[in-house]
Amino acid sequence: MTSALLTDRYELTMVEAALRAGTAHRDSVFEVFARRLPEGRRYGIVAGTGRFLAELSRFRFGDAELAWLSDERIVDAATIDWLADYRFSGDVSGYAEGEVYLPGSPLLVVESSFAEGVLLETLALSVFNYDSAVAGAAARMVSAADGRPLAEMGSRRTGERSAVAAARAAYIAGFDATSNLEAGRTWGVPTMGTAAHAFTLLHDSEEDAFRAQVATLGPGTTLLVDTYDIPTAVRTAVEVAGTGLGAVRIDSGDLPSLVGQVRRQLDDLGATGTRITVTNDLDEYTIAALRAAPVDSYGVGTSVVSGSGHPAAGMVFKLVARRDDAGEWVSVAKKSADKASVGGRKAPVRVLSDGVATTELIRVGDEQAAEHERPLLVPLVRGGGVDERFLGHEGVARARAHRIEAVAELPAGAFRLGRGEPVIPTVYR
Amino acid sequence: MTSALLTDRYELTMVEAALRAGTAHRDSVFEVFARRLPEGRRYGIVAGTGRFLAELSRFRFGDAELAWLSDERIVDAATIDWLADYRFSGDVSGYAEGEVYLPGSPLLVVESSFAEGVLLETLALSVFNYDSAVAGAAARMVSAADGRPLAEMGSRRTGERSAVAAARAAYIAGFDATSNLEAGRTWGVPTMGTAAHAFTLLHDSEEDAFRAQVATLGPGTTLLVDTYDIPTAVRTAVEVAGTGLGAVRIDSGDLPSLVGQVRRQLDDLGATGTRITVTNDLDEYTIAALRAAPVDSYGVGTSVVSGSGHPAAGMVFKLVARRDDAGEWVSVAKKSADKASVGGRKAPVRVLSDGVATTELIRVGDEQAAEHERPLLVPLVRGGGVDERFLGHEGVARARAHRIEAVAELPAGAFRLGRGEPVIPTVYR
Repeated sequence: MTSALLTDRYELTMVEAALRAGTAHRDSVFEVFARRLPEGRRYGIVAGTGRFLAELSRFRFGDAELAWLSDERIVDAATIDWLADYRFSGDVSGYAEGEVYLPGSPLLVVESSFAEGVLLETLALSVFNYDSAVAGAAARMVSAADGRPLAEMGSRRTGERSAVAAARAAYIAGFDATSNLEAGRTWGVPTMGTAAHAFTLLHDSEEDAFRAQVATLGPGTTLLVDTYDIPTAVRTAVEVAGTGLGAVRIDSGDLPSLVGQVRRQLDDLGATGTRITVTNDLDEYTIAALRAAPVDSYGVGTSVVSGSGHPAAGMVFKLVARRDDAGEWVSVAKKSADKASVGGRKAPVRVLSDGVATTELIRVGDEQAAEHERPLLVPLVRGGGVDERFLGHEGVARARAHRIEAVAELPAGAFRLGRGEPVIPTVYR
Repeated sequence: MTSALLTDRYELTMVEAALRAGTAHRDSVFEVFARRLPEGRRYGIVAGTGRFLAELSRFRFGDAELAWLSDERIVDAATIDWLADYRFSGDVSGYAEGEVYLPGSPLLVVESSFAEGVLLETLALSVFNYDSAVAGAAARMVSAADGRPLAEMGSRRTGERSAVAAARAAYIAGFDATSNLEAGRTWGVPTMGTAAHAFTLLHDSEEDAFRAQVATLGPGTTLLVDTYDIPTAVRTAVEVAGTGLGAVRIDSGDLPSLVGQVRRQLDDLGATGTRITVTNDLDEYTIAALRAAPVDSYGVGTSVVSGSGHPAAGMVFKLVARRDDAGEWVSVAKKSADKASVGGRKAPVRVLSDGVATTELIRVGDEQAAEHERPLLVPLVRGGGVDERFLGHEGVARARAHRIEAVAELPAGAFRLGRGEPVIPTVYR
């Protein structure tokens, strides 16, 4: 399925007007960045790169799209012809997926003609704004869980295709699994899940339901114990599955006290190895509040797929430089109130002191990184050809590994859950 | 593209266990409803029905999906065989798309075998939770705009496929247009848009940019006037396009005062018919705050596509009745703390007094509606066959028209923006 119409109409009308004005082919540099982090957050995690690159490969105007654009008179015939031949032929660099970002970090840099690049604006922002919103929230939950595993279970709380992206972004940010099958297939995210309340209600008794589940999924399965009365269900669960029962899941109630009671009951029944997983409207704060409770794993839904209060990462896609008719590069920037941008091509580095990040240094121009500076831009596309290492399962695995390294450089203050300022300052030079 | 893996793994493991237990084919009734409205909201708008029905038609496990499920050992061979033949053959009823809903309203009712119905849970909730979150927020913005036209421009602030759904949902809720081209093609939503700041920055001067745009799109176009200095741009815009300039767009700054200044300047320049459109991070509150300003239309982005603070509508999909082995219907409901549900098949009506809604009356059972009661369930699918009037462009147009009628029945208190209780009570009988 083509991604070419996942685009705002004005991208195409700009191409039309620029083609007619003779400015469409001016070499241009566009940048994706966030003016600020979601309120109170201390760092962000780049997610979406691999998805954007995959969509870029599919960004073609086929006959059906062209016919519709023509019938609706969205653009003129000359523009239709140009769109029919559209293949992105430029370069794209960016922060590695999984990288930490801060306000102003140029996390994607598109270098192409104006027309080739501007068409990608909406799609690039849709992908990065959503995926990075999820990853930024997920990273905080991972910190709050303090080493205990997290599963993403929020597919039902976001658009059905966004759900796949959310599972992928949460996994990159350190979640361990997802309930979403398509995310398993397309992106290699481990999938999990056993049964919902409906399965218990389908059967004539809770015991029947547990027997049916254990008969099929084995005693190592996870039994959901809060459909009726939790202590009764826990007793039934151990009777049915034996003390080798894998886990019980609690999806309602006052978790800090419930979890302790269930743990004691399981231990009293001899099911000392049975784990407890909780899934009741968790977010980073309620996860942290359960640190003292004997929880073994968490399932998180709404809050992770909706960015825990910040469902879009606030990124923008801006023209920062273009050539004039004499072939000279001109840095450009708008001056709008509260929305000014910094013109010019950027060379961002993370400055480190004893391995700890101290500054997001964004040099305007093409300077070399100095010692103790980690260059942040990675080539992703050259001459229209996408580097395949960033695609598919491999790209996800690479991003998940990169996040661990990037986050490990952050000062300890980065991981406080309370509202604060970005953990290191952004400096332009 | 199949929708069958846009599903939580546990839907499939429940089918597997129920097939083995001999309970998979029990006739069942599932219901989609919201336990509560987003905090402080007074009513909700059903959106997503037409999208869900389209996805239901594509819900097939093809060879690629089956091979992956088998390779990953998600379910056993018998279940793979059953999935290979899966076609939904049951009935679906629901609130008409565009209908008002309240806490507990059974806005989708799925009647089928347990296995056929349970597989649809995740997909149904993804669609209704997102689309209705957008529609609910959009409806408030429509009230706040008090008759002035609204355009949805938030594609870049949500996942790229959710963006198409958001444009559709906002249109159903009363928006007039979208920037999203795919929403125009797939759903018949009118599209709009002319140029971004990048177009101005591409050119050697703002005047060059305006000339290029007017040369292509005509003087009736909308010129963006806040790239550098607004008064200068407004003067240039009228010089370039003449007093017949269609509109100017302002995307930054303190709108209530700016809009008045720009109106006076346009009038002084003789461009008395030139409209003013504003697009700076609007939500229902800032739209309402501009009521006294000479704004002609609004463009709304982030807040509408993210449900204005409530990105998921909080709907759930619950088994409410099923047959036992003797063929008798059994009402079922879980008793979990704070998450109890009401068992049994429902017959919901809206009780009206002099044409004004007074109660959401949900009869448990199959009773007939009395006088002054509007029945709310509409047949959508019969024996697996989708009623095509609810699909595609026709379905969207129908939903948009239905919303107007449904909202017209609400008491005036429904349209207050401040936080409040649901505008009419939900009563079970």
